[in-house]
Amino acid sequence: MTDPAPLSLSGQRLAAVYELTCPDDQAETRARDICLEQTVEFPEDLIPRQEIRDQIVGRIASIETFGPDRHRAVIEYPIEAAGEEFPQLINLLFGNISIKPGVRLVRFELPPSMLNSYRGPRFGQSGLRRRLGARPGPLVCTAIKPMGLGPEELADLTYRLALGGIDLIKDDHGLADQPFCRFAPRVQLCSAAVQRANSQTGGNCVYVPNVTGPTQLILPRAHLAKQAGAGGLLFLPGLAGLDTMRWLADQDDLCLPILAHPAFQGPYTMRGDEGISHGALYGQLNRLAGADAVIFPNFGGRFSFTPEQCRDLVDGCTCAMGHLPTVFPVPAGGMRVERVPELYEFYGDDCILLVGGDLHRHGSDLTENCRRLIEMVKMVRMGTGLDV
Amino acid sequence: MTDPAPLSLSGQRLAAVYELTCPDDQAETRARDICLEQTVEFPEDLIPRQEIRDQIVGRIASIETFGPDRHRAVIEYPIEAAGEEFPQLINLLFGNISIKPGVRLVRFELPPSMLNSYRGPRFGQSGLRRRLGARPGPLVCTAIKPMGLGPEELADLTYRLALGGIDLIKDDHGLADQPFCRFAPRVQLCSAAVQRANSQTGGNCVYVPNVTGPTQLILPRAHLAKQAGAGGLLFLPGLAGLDTMRWLADQDDLCLPILAHPAFQGPYTMRGDEGISHGALYGQLNRLAGADAVIFPNFGGRFSFTPEQCRDLVDGCTCAMGHLPTVFPVPAGGMRVERVPELYEFYGDDCILLVGGDLHRHGSDLTENCRRLIEMVKMVRMGTGLDV
Repeated sequence: MTDPAPLSLSGQRLAAVYELTCPDDQAETRARDICLEQTVEFPEDLIPRQEIRDQIVGRIASIETFGPDRHRAVIEYPIEAAGEEFPQLINLLFGNISIKPGVRLVRFELPPSMLNSYRGPRFGQSGLRRRLGARPGPLVCTAIKPMGLGPEELADLTYRLALGGIDLIKDDHGLADQPFCRFAPRVQLCSAAVQRANSQTGGNCVYVPNVTGPTQLILPRAHLAKQAGAGGLLFLPGLAGLDTMRWLADQDDLCLPILAHPAFQGPYTMRGDEGISHGALYGQLNRLAGADAVIFPNFGGRFSFTPEQCRDLVDGCTCAMGHLPTVFPVPAGGMRVERVPELYEFYGDDCILLVGGDLHRHGSDLTENCRRLIEMVKMVRMGTGLDV
Repeated sequence: MTDPAPLSLSGQRLAAVYELTCPDDQAETRARDICLEQTVEFPEDLIPRQEIRDQIVGRIASIETFGPDRHRAVIEYPIEAAGEEFPQLINLLFGNISIKPGVRLVRFELPPSMLNSYRGPRFGQSGLRRRLGARPGPLVCTAIKPMGLGPEELADLTYRLALGGIDLIKDDHGLADQPFCRFAPRVQLCSAAVQRANSQTGGNCVYVPNVTGPTQLILPRAHLAKQAGAGGLLFLPGLAGLDTMRWLADQDDLCLPILAHPAFQGPYTMRGDEGISHGALYGQLNRLAGADAVIFPNFGGRFSFTPEQCRDLVDGCTCAMGHLPTVFPVPAGGMRVERVPELYEFYGDDCILLVGGDLHRHGSDLTENCRRLIEMVKMVRMGTGLDV
């Protein structure tokens, strides 16, 4: 073989922040291990060329200790190691080390040259507000369920919810294309139900069907939804892949807001010393993948997120990421109508409140229950002295 | 609205086995919670029709206690809740409850009517053996690396490894389409290198490029690989989605063996009381998704799997699953040549041993190092009295 061509990298790097759980005297070794594992995956002493050691292998920018056996390491990787591809970026940030204990990815920062290869959310907070008619304050979302109802029943529910002034009505995340509730008739009937309600109320309610499905059916379903008049798309990146959501969001002929749902992603954020932080996974990665709003289980509901984790998630939805707009956090998961004041205090104006089953608990007039919920959101907001 | 049509379900159910970590007096409540969360996701008392309660909601088949605060619950779901779709099956098995602590999916069993809608692995253990020339005993695999080498250098490595009699030569899982090593020239040169070596040795070595990438590029890359003469495809379902692997495996015009790599899947199996068992995730779900061989970090390497977890993974690769063939476990992750006897004792004949960087440690003659590794595999096998 002739001598290989030099690497000629740009010198630009992306930065990943990891929290390491290990004794103090091992922190640097662990960080160094990440530098190798995530790039060359090769014994350091056997790396065949010096420029690979210098330019490809990750570089420790800093290590600080922030608690007993807890360390924060910033590691910089050459942007070329991720190429221009989202899956390989995820791989570089947390592929193999996801299998090693005591390492948590908490944030990452991409240089503008890299961010520019991501379209990101098409709407974001401000775009979605414009599309929904721009009532100030928190938006309100609900889900049609339970599984087992047929398309006509769900459309009837949708109509009554839309009449009550809900902003977004999404499929329950378990609605796919089951024999008792096929995708096509459900989406057609529910879209029509929302349009009928909007024509009566003058509102801008949107129906958001779940287009997650077998890979080859995702785009056909999304196009069917668009043609039927759906106003957004629900997607489950944990089941279908983050890059598959990016692929969906990048379709110029769809151009619909995307709500991301966290099903099957729980293990990433379950333990504070491993996996990925709520902000990096549900916030930053979902934004790169084009989500305009991020559904997650709020603290104090049926799940186990803490207020601190929810705050971190909001930070990931709104932190600076170049040209990528901020996106909506959508606290959900067993939310009760009575919790609106507490939710407003915590999330403020820029969130979408998702109330599901609890809307059905307050008497049989669903439309009236929706009106009361929205009235409560307005009143709570007024109580703060803000203009409603 | 007129009265809704009755559900008319088949009555067939799939079974999921969960391990619950909770006090004894909460086990039944927790199991019941799973029955609801994974189907109707709705307060039980508000479910609008009795037949939904009876037919859609999961059903507890059994609960047994197997340790302090440890319980094994078998829950049966109607097959119609998953429809005929893999993502919704995963959702049903472990979507929302992945976000709840103390629940681990350890196994699942699908009735034949459901399994029949999955093609599964095209080759499996016996098909892959036939394709590779059927030397008895463990097959041998290695990876070309480190990241930073160009296509010509990797092709030169590939040639020398193939000359040494390695059965499968795969891309390192971090090789994507980086500017310093583009997918197309790498795959063309490495495929040609293997063919050149095979023509000299009379062997059947195959090159297995990594076709994971942006969703819209996966099939084009796989077709390019096939045209170039690659003998298998490496895929990372943790990055691209399990169903995306299923989609790839289902392409009749590709028809190449698929090796699954576990990058980004670590959090699912990190904790013994949460997530998914090694057997269910890396074995059962990968088989449904069409993988013919499953790479995983062996015990005692750079990662943290235990022998028991590796045994469970092998069980998931080989347990009865209707028409789905058994697939190869591929222990990897810092394997050293000297460990062959121990690996053989543990995995026996039906595995693929993946030795990566360590092949480079034993002197500069890579071809000779491969020959010695394969000789060692044969000798260890002979030592057991088996026919080699």
